Amino acid sequence: MYKKFIVEFIGTFFLVFTVGMTVLHQPDGVIPPLAIGAILMTMIFAGGHISGGHFNPAVTLAVFVRGKIPGIEAVGYVISQILAGAVAAGVVLSLKGGPATGAAPAQLVPVLVAEFLFTFALAWVVLNVATAKGTSGNSFYGLAIGFTVLAGAFAVGSISGAAFNPAVVTGATLLGLLNPATIWIYFVANFAGGGAAAIVFRIVNDEAAD
Amino acid sequence: MYKKFIVEFIGTFFLVFTVGMTVLHQPDGVIPPLAIGAILMTMIFAGGHISGGHFNPAVTLAVFVRGKIPGIEAVGYVISQILAGAVAAGVVLSLKGGPATGAAPAQLVPVLVAEFLFTFALAWVVLNVATAKGTSGNSFYGLAIGFTVLAGAFAVGSISGAAFNPAVVTGATLLGLLNPATIWIYFVANFAGGGAAAIVFRIVNDEAAD
Amino acid sequence: MYKKFIVEFIGTFFLVFTVGMTVLHQPDGVIPPLAIGAILMTMIFAGGHISGGHFNPAVTLAVFVRGKIPGIEAVGYVISQILAGAVAAGVVLSLKGGPATGAAPAQLVPVLVAEFLFTFALAWVVLNVATAKGTSGNSFYGLAIGFTVLAGAFAVGSISGAAFNPAVVTGATLLGLLNPATIWIYFVANFAGGGAAAIVFRIVNDEAAD
Amino acid sequence: MYKKFIVEFIGTFFLVFTVGMTVLHQPDGVIPPLAIGAILMTMIFAGGHISGGHFNPAVTLAVFVRGKIPGIEAVGYVISQILAGAVAAGVVLSLKGGPATGAAPAQLVPVLVAEFLFTFALAWVVLNVATAKGTSGNSFYGLAIGFTVLAGAFAVGSISGAAFNPAVVTGATLLGLLNPATIWIYFVANFAGGGAAAIVFRIVNDEAAD
Repeated sequence: MYKKFIVEFIGTFFLVFTVGMTVLHQPDGVIPPLAIGAILMTMIFAGGHISGGHFNPAVTLAVFVRGKIPGIEAVGYVISQILAGAVAAGVVLSLKGGPATGAAPAQLVPVLVAEFLFTFALAWVVLNVATAKGTSGNSFYGLAIGFTVLAGAFAVGSISGAAFNPAVVTGATLLGLLNPATIWIYFVANFAGGGAAAIVFRIVNDEAAD
Repeated sequence: MYKKFIVEFIGTFFLVFTVGMTVLHQPDGVIPPLAIGAILMTMIFAGGHISGGHFNPAVTLAVFVRGKIPGIEAVGYVISQILAGAVAAGVVLSLKGGPATGAAPAQLVPVLVAEFLFTFALAWVVLNVATAKGTSGNSFYGLAIGFTVLAGAFAVGSISGAAFNPAVVTGATLLGLLNPATIWIYFVANFAGGGAAAIVFRIVNDEAAD
Repeated sequence: MYKKFIVEFIGTFFLVFTVGMTVLHQPDGVIPPLAIGAILMTMIFAGGHISGGHFNPAVTLAVFVRGKIPGIEAVGYVISQILAGAVAAGVVLSLKGGPATGAAPAQLVPVLVAEFLFTFALAWVVLNVATAKGTSGNSFYGLAIGFTVLAGAFAVGSISGAAFNPAVVTGATLLGLLNPATIWIYFVANFAGGGAAAIVFRIVNDEAAD
Repeated sequence: MYKKFIVEFIGTFFLVFTVGMTVLHQPDGVIPPLAIGAILMTMIFAGGHISGGHFNPAVTLAVFVRGKIPGIEAVGYVISQILAGAVAAGVVLSLKGGPATGAAPAQLVPVLVAEFLFTFALAWVVLNVATAKGTSGNSFYGLAIGFTVLAGAFAVGSISGAAFNPAVVTGATLLGLLNPATIWIYFVANFAGGGAAAIVFRIVNDEAAD
């Protein structure tokens, strides 16, 4: 089981590291979503066959609700992911020379809506491309998942910063990109989005009771 | 059957939501086509195994003419898609603070040509990658379909706004991006493009009578 | 056989149409290579199972030298492709209001090198991903071929305009993007690149004599 | 065996050629990572079935440590790759009219960290998508590998130039993009990253002893 935790650590580390390196001290634009979507895709393609390639506590929650990961293992996943997010933030800080300052508090309703919607989309895609019978054996799961984050980063990046992932929220907070006082909004929205996607998945997929 | 309608609603919602969030109050550029192509791809990869992943009344028409969906189901698809486009527009307006103003009437011939051509291309790709024997079991259908819209958005975005999809037209009109007086041009061009693609598909594919 | 010609016409039409719409009257940048690579990919994924998805006389030559298409059929392919390039240019002109003016003559050696190298790369990729036993049944052929043109357009677009394709050269000349007096350089370089790739392919692939 | 060396030469040539053409005499931006990631992807899809598609001595080292290539063959691979990098640099210089000047010495720790991390990521992805039982027969290996370099180029391009590959370092040095006095840092970091990835791969994959 610890092998899966290593893989989750590696994938989440590179995800949050890429987030930090492309977002910190740099204006918004086309680069961060491309880079983040790409690294998530490649880490999923690399690690998916070992750990499932979650790299995201909200995804792990969704897979747990869907019934494809035991609770105890899910806890280990989340610990690995949060730890990797924190370590990645540390390495980014050492390379970039310090955190951002002055992150404004998040606005409750817009951030809640934006983060809920795209975490829902992300978990919806994960469950359908990586755990459904109808798509088993496909070669697109990493592409589909990574590019959901790419699309979401373009769509709501200006509203919420486009985390969709409590491990990314953890790293981004350490990097000074999110205001600590309001990150609870992200955690609520991300886990609610992941859980809701799992419920809808079970409604529309006949095999959901596997 | 209602499960398919839910999936069509989800996919079309995120497609039109991404259109609105990346196009409204923002200059043209590289971002909207990337984001829109990506979200269409990922929603098709996620929902295709349940509903076929149309998310577009013109595609549903093409699949109906090609003989792969019953008429009554097709009607339900179109209702779900239009409804999703309208709801997505509402959420975009709540996040963005209001519609665009002053959309000029569309120019008849250029818009007709641009929308017909790329809706034809889109339906041509859908029918060949998602309903043809020669490509059955492939892992690229979402990529092919999503990136057709990406290419079309770059190619004719400055001519017609690059809808290729009556559900997108519905959402874009509610967002103030298209002039209501001339959206009939889009509907005509989109359905004509989808229907024409189905006819050409049946001519060049021997299995078309399945 | 005429069904294949229709498919080659459709694919080449949308390729050259996208080239014209994104290049004519627009500064260089990130958009044309993305759009052109994308439409080539999607047209190959859509039409490859019927015609092989050449959309390029230099590719047809390479496939002929490799021994996978009869000579008489290859001639029909090339005619369809050139015709499609010319028709696409006409539609672009009708939408864009007239050709570019003042295209400078191409510089012999740089254009020859640039066009030879990337037409070689393109045909090399086509032969290996679409005609080799070692990759049969793959789901990446369109992605590989389309993104070779994307990479080439970024790499040598400023040297030669990045045609790699006599049907594109035909369309680009009608659009005023290439100087008619020097397009023979492109034809020589494109066909030489395609032929050379087929020869190298036969050397390194044991199954080349099939 | 010489057939594999030809394929490694071709792939590495186009990789380093694309690096040089998009980076030399051009400001940083979105284009080089897109172009480089794309060409690496396509060359891997084209050549992988013959040579494995390394195009990178650090990857060859990783595959050797993982136990999938004999030592004598690995030496031939590296020679082909370095030679291809040098030849590609020569062709770039002939087209671009001369090398860059004034490349500053690399900063030891940041370059070591950046190059180690992403060469690790690259080799980690290669080993998992191209040599692991759990992903055998997939159609995404080129996409995963190419887009790891794309992500890395966006993430650490401003720190180290984003080589991750001694053949690229060789070419970039000849192009004047890297300072010769400090390229040993790259070689150390690249080979260390490749070797470390192979060790972690063997720890987490049960089949590593094949």
